[in-house]
Parts: sequence; structure tokens; C-alpha cells
Amino acid sequence: MSEAVLHEVHLIGCGLIGTSMALDLRAKDVKVTLEDSVSTNLAEAIKLGAGSTEAQDSPDLVIVAVPPSAVSEVVIAALEKYPEALVIDVASVKTPIFDALDAAKIDLTRFISTHPMAGKELTGPENANAGLFKNKVWAVIKEQNQTPALVLELIHLLGAKPVHLSAIEHDKAVALTSHTPQLLASVLASLIAEADEAELCLSGQGLLDMVRIAGSDSKLWSDIVMLNTANIVAHITALQAKLTNLVEILESSETSTTKDELITLIEQGNSGLAKLKQIQDRNLS
Amino acid sequence: MSEAVLHEVHLIGCGLIGTSMALDLRAKDVKVTLEDSVSTNLAEAIKLGAGSTEAQDSPDLVIVAVPPSAVSEVVIAALEKYPEALVIDVASVKTPIFDALDAAKIDLTRFISTHPMAGKELTGPENANAGLFKNKVWAVIKEQNQTPALVLELIHLLGAKPVHLSAIEHDKAVALTSHTPQLLASVLASLIAEADEAELCLSGQGLLDMVRIAGSDSKLWSDIVMLNTANIVAHITALQAKLTNLVEILESSETSTTKDELITLIEQGNSGLAKLKQIQDRNLS
Repeated sequence: MSEAVLHEVHLIGCGLIGTSMALDLRAKDVKVTLEDSVSTNLAEAIKLGAGSTEAQDSPDLVIVAVPPSAVSEVVIAALEKYPEALVIDVASVKTPIFDALDAAKIDLTRFISTHPMAGKELTGPENANAGLFKNKVWAVIKEQNQTPALVLELIHLLGAKPVHLSAIEHDKAVALTSHTPQLLASVLASLIAEADEAELCLSGQGLLDMVRIAGSDSKLWSDIVMLNTANIVAHITALQAKLTNLVEILESSETSTTKDELITLIEQGNSGLAKLKQIQDRNLS
Repeated sequence: MSEAVLHEVHLIGCGLIGTSMALDLRAKDVKVTLEDSVSTNLAEAIKLGAGSTEAQDSPDLVIVAVPPSAVSEVVIAALEKYPEALVIDVASVKTPIFDALDAAKIDLTRFISTHPMAGKELTGPENANAGLFKNKVWAVIKEQNQTPALVLELIHLLGAKPVHLSAIEHDKAVALTSHTPQLLASVLASLIAEADEAELCLSGQGLLDMVRIAGSDSKLWSDIVMLNTANIVAHITALQAKLTNLVEILESSETSTTKDELITLIEQGNSGLAKLKQIQDRNLS
């Protein structure tokens, strides 16, 4: 691994994630060339100093940072256009990408699928920043036997920590920890959208934190969610069962039982939060 | 109002909220005497410099900062023991307190019910801090024609902003913006508690923010929730209907409709978040 050195990276897709990666790489003196089908995104990324559009010599690494539903097509084109380069993607859903590449009978030797667990509720290059990946987990899909050193170098260079898992494991995990919470935040925020202003006059930081990610981009997130529906529906169904049980507890006339069962629920939540914090701390230690 | 001056405050209940208020008042050179039925809480609050237990001369103001289900009883005793003082409470639920005081035929002339919209997922005097109420909204229940100047002085002294509303309006508002989100965070965190560790390895800040308040104290929160069940059940039922609709959208075989409806949901969430931020900004401007 010590021999791999990133010299030149070609970025396809100058959104929040791609541009943030490019800014980090530029700060580490890696040459970055940029490409985006949306000319305003490309212009903004160049303005920010994320790289240039000059002809690539021969990139070591091509980063495909386009919306999930476009990834497989762009990866196939990149593997063909850059026959010497490794190609990675950074999409939030994995199984459908591998399905599409398998269906197209693509040799996956030079393709590594990855997903940095970093983001914002804001999108576009104008919200990008270097440092976005520092101390974040970065999923690497282990369809290959070994992750190429160059990919690990990229992740380390950006201050992130690689976590290796399969595409199926990845999609199950993000359904629980990212996609379902995202939709739940949207549902809660849509209840706020319908509420009278008088009902909102006493809101504080707790609610704001819970709906922060409801500010996310609707086109990007509908794209992500549609590629992982079965896993998400399983979690929403589990949530619904818990909410139905909660309503039964609240409507029970046995107040001492209600109190005990509410305490049990809140303590389960205490445990869940403690478990989450412990895993996050351990992942990043 | 300019003539009212807080000289001496007696605090009953040295938990997070009460002790934080006392620390703020001490920093402004207001004399504070302390009382708590739990001796360890009292000792901790004294150690932190929140006040003393020396005999009160004649407090201008008595602050009742005990758990909601104990408030009415403590308020009745305080009104009797301190016949010259104003008595306020700071509980998270209002209607049951007024119901109990009305049932006991208490003269409410010297009682003002209030609720600072500040807190933490942590409890107890050991987590208290001065400044907790700075730039926070502070509900004042307008059962009286006019809020006494001393109460407004207290709120301003602690850097908060008073919002006047009725007990019924208060309980409806906090059901939506505090109690339902609190339970939703617990429900989501309880799903995490049941999950395999492998499913949690990719979690990030978004999920952590959504479940932060799931760390709240189970005894305090079961107490609060049980005093506002009808309002809470109405919101949970509305959430359930939205989740049922979401599952139908996700399971639909018409992908173009699914995409459109997901975009609509996420955009409703965008609007809800924007509305919430706007109201919070306006409240505190």
C-alpha cells in the first residue's frame, strides 16, 4: 500500500460530494480534472478551485459522483474511456448498481464501489467543502478480494475510515440508519408544514435537530429511496407496529401499566442511543 | 415594569431546569434559596453555587421546578407558606395543573404558570448551567389579564423571550413540537436497540441528531407524556396515516408516480423545515 500514490484524479459529477472530495484532493496537491453534464455545476466547482477541465493525461482514479440511478451507465463509460484507471463510485445505494453492471456483463476488476457516510441537507458544489469526510466512515464494497491500495489511500487522504461490507449488507444498513430516518424526518416535517403557526411557537432545538435532514434535496433523495424500497419498507413497517403499540399504551385506562410501559419504551430508546454512540465511537477510534 | 426588581427567589426543585435558573440568577446577584426533597440534588446544587438553604426572609418569587405530576400540590403549599410571594411553575404540561388548582378552589391571583422551552437530554443539577435559557422562548400562560412585571423581569434576566398563550394552546403546541418528537425519537432509537451491530456500522450525524433526545430521562418523560396523551395521540395517528401512505407509494409498481409522490413528500418536508426555522427566527428576533 505504501507504493500507491494518487497523482491524478478525474471527477465525474461536481455535486456536493464530488466537489468536496476534489477540494480535499487539491489541498493535498493531487491533480484533479472535472466533468459534469450540468455546466453551471462545473463552472462553480472550477471557481471554487476544485480542479480544471484541461485534458487528462491518464488519471489513476476516476471518481463517479453522479446521482445513484445514473451511476452504472457512467461507470461503464468511464471503464471504457480510461482503460488504465481504477473507477469508483460514491453512491448511497449499491445492489442496483451491481445488478446493472452484471446485466451488462462488465468486467469489475477495475471498479470499486464505495460510499462515504458524509453529506449535508444541502446540495450542489456551492455547499461543498474540504474536510467533509474527516472522521467519517467510508463504506467499501467487498465484491473484490482486496481493496486496491489507491482507494484506501484516497480514503485516508480525506481523513475517513474504511468499513468493508457487501452490497447487500450496505443497502440493509443504510436503509435503517440513513434512508428510513430521512423519510421519517420528511414525514415529521410535513406534519409541521400542515400545522397552524400557533402550534409551532414553542418549538426548540430538539425538534429542529430531528427535522434538519428534512431539508434534503427531493430529486436526489427520491432517486436514492426508489433504489432501496424493500429494505426501507421493512423498517417503516416495524416503526408503524411500534407506533400502534405506543398509541395502545397511551390510550390504556390502566395508568400504572401505562407509566411502566412508557418507561420501558423510553429506556429502550436510551439503550439504542447508547449503542449507536458506542458503535460510532468505536468505528472512528 | 421598570419598578419591579427581583431581590430574593426561593427555588423548590433543584433539577436541571431549576438549578440552571438559580445559577443564572446568582450570576445576576439575586439571592437564591434552595429546597429539594432529594437531598443529593440539593447538595449538588449548593456545591455548584446555585444558592443556599438559609432561611428565606421573604422571597419575591417562588419557582416550583418539580416534575409535572407534583406541581399542583407544591404550588398550593408554596402559595400558603409564602403569602407575599408570586409563585411560578416551569412544567412542560399546563392543563392538568390548572385543572387540579381549580378543583382545589385555589385563588390563582399570585400564581403564574410558565414553561421555558429549554432543556437537555440530560437531567439533574449536575448537568445544569447558567445561560441555558438565553435566546430561548419562554411560554407564559395567560390565564391572568396581565403578566406580573416580576415574571417578565425573570425571563428577560435569563435572556429568554416570553410568548403568551393559554394552557390549552400550550399543551396542543408542545404535543406537536416536543412530546410527539420525543416519543418518535424513542421509537426510532428502540429500533436501533434491536438492530444487529452490522446494520449500524454506517450510521452518521443525521441519525445521531434524530435520536439525540431519545437519551432523555424515562421517569420525567413518562410523567410529562401521561399528562398530555390526547394531544399526543392525535399527532401520532396523523404520523401513522402518513407512514401508511408512504409505504403504499414505495410499494406501487408505477415508478413514475412513485418518484413524483416521493418528491412531493420530501418537498412538503422542505417546506415544514423552512416554516419552522422562520417561526423560530421570528420568535427570537
